[in-house]
Amino acid sequence: MRDFAKDHSALALNTATLGHNLDGHGAGWSVERVVEACAERGFGGIVFWRREIGNRAVEIGERVRAAGLSVVGLCRAPYLAGPLALPGRAAIMDDFRAAIDMAAGLGAPVLTIVCGGVEPGTKGIGESLKLVADRVAEAAAYAAASNVRLALEPLHPVYGGDRSCLVTMRDAVDLCLAIDAPNVGVAVDVYHVWWDRTLADELLRAGPERIFGYHLCDWLAQTHDVLLDRGMMGDGVADLKAIRAAVEAAGYNGPCEVEVFSAQNWWRRDPADVLDACVERFRSVC
Amino acid sequence: MRDFAKDHSALALNTATLGHNLDGHGAGWSVERVVEACAERGFGGIVFWRREIGNRAVEIGERVRAAGLSVVGLCRAPYLAGPLALPGRAAIMDDFRAAIDMAAGLGAPVLTIVCGGVEPGTKGIGESLKLVADRVAEAAAYAAASNVRLALEPLHPVYGGDRSCLVTMRDAVDLCLAIDAPNVGVAVDVYHVWWDRTLADELLRAGPERIFGYHLCDWLAQTHDVLLDRGMMGDGVADLKAIRAAVEAAGYNGPCEVEVFSAQNWWRRDPADVLDACVERFRSVC
Repeated sequence: MRDFAKDHSALALNTATLGHNLDGHGAGWSVERVVEACAERGFGGIVFWRREIGNRAVEIGERVRAAGLSVVGLCRAPYLAGPLALPGRAAIMDDFRAAIDMAAGLGAPVLTIVCGGVEPGTKGIGESLKLVADRVAEAAAYAAASNVRLALEPLHPVYGGDRSCLVTMRDAVDLCLAIDAPNVGVAVDVYHVWWDRTLADELLRAGPERIFGYHLCDWLAQTHDVLLDRGMMGDGVADLKAIRAAVEAAGYNGPCEVEVFSAQNWWRRDPADVLDACVERFRSVC
Repeated sequence: MRDFAKDHSALALNTATLGHNLDGHGAGWSVERVVEACAERGFGGIVFWRREIGNRAVEIGERVRAAGLSVVGLCRAPYLAGPLALPGRAAIMDDFRAAIDMAAGLGAPVLTIVCGGVEPGTKGIGESLKLVADRVAEAAAYAAASNVRLALEPLHPVYGGDRSCLVTMRDAVDLCLAIDAPNVGVAVDVYHVWWDRTLADELLRAGPERIFGYHLCDWLAQTHDVLLDRGMMGDGVADLKAIRAAVEAAGYNGPCEVEVFSAQNWWRRDPADVLDACVERFRSVC
């Protein structure tokens, strides 16, 4: 297992941690200022959200690399099914390709997929997962031409109805095996999987070629809002060391991306302090 | 699979569906009025919460049976671990025995156990599950003397931090096998397990001797409050027929208990209408 106590070059910032992926939150730092602040602190990489990029993907990608950082990924593909998805397959696939194009422009090796919830008119998650498999399989061919990998991120089962019919690593690995494309894998986010005692075995089943990302935050024992009340690493009940041990035992040794949605706490702080906390917690408790 | 379309004698009311298990909610019907209303509608049984019973356990149990109903169960044992548990093992076990005594007085064959969350000072759910196993094993011997069975209810993983370190049927079955007492089994609640594609296999692993209850409600696609915004059967995305098929395939053919926590919807309605809806939905969509 890697020792981060004296080397945090594997640390990446997901910009959601600074809040400005949602209107009305965060301190409003520009992309350039975020990049500079991460570089100053020795972060290894950065993950953006599409709304921050607009039509500046190539420019921002170059800016990140000029600062000595990597673009680690892009959030995210559109919902592929469920009540929050765009109306109709064509609109969904158009937006999916636009997200892939943006990732390619940025030089982001990974585009994260949040699958979307239970397709209206169906019950349970089975039919929705089939829709997702079909749509990801089609997009995977398009993404491969741009060297973009697609990371299926199982979300916590609390989002099963509306945001993600994919709620366990087991189902994510099954989906990868069914799609069977070399650029389709999984992302592991401690917020979503901390409670799952089958995680280590499922990651071994995925294998190193299918683990495309590792996301850090913490699950607060008493969570007030399942969307915007995530904890900073160390403040919650997730066994972060054990989860990383499982991820690394399965062969992953890539970036570790801090993604803390926290409207009432971390998003209200000075971003400089938040970034300092990310570094300190990464070295001490992750 | 049983046909409920013309026979709802397996239907039981969990009184939480009428809201009066929480202060300030519900229409305030007396226990006697609830029993009478259930009997009029052909319910087969009823499940109470401890706060409704006080020191009238024997009297209420007799009242229920005189009305032609069964007392199906009692909610619930105290949290056995985690931040919401009583302070100290002795206080927890005293209250656990008091709950068992009340179930025995009522003539309730089953006492439901909600395990409690992650024990302070620990990370992940592993250590907390060990505490739970130890405490349930001790209580099981006491409960056996009163012919009370203990039903471990895995809650949805959203409650993992504070209310239940037991969040999957897999872990619940493992816990039963570890404790290995004939009066320790599981309760299956669709709200908590609807997203789990391993459910059918885990129930087969439990076997008919270890399934002590089946709880009905629905998971609303867009849930506003994970505690008090449950749906009535048919209004959500749970595949209720498929889940019951799995439960019955594993050998369970006992009562089906409606338990709808719904502060902003069902708890605001006339209890008579709520009970009518329970019957109608039970016959049509469960």
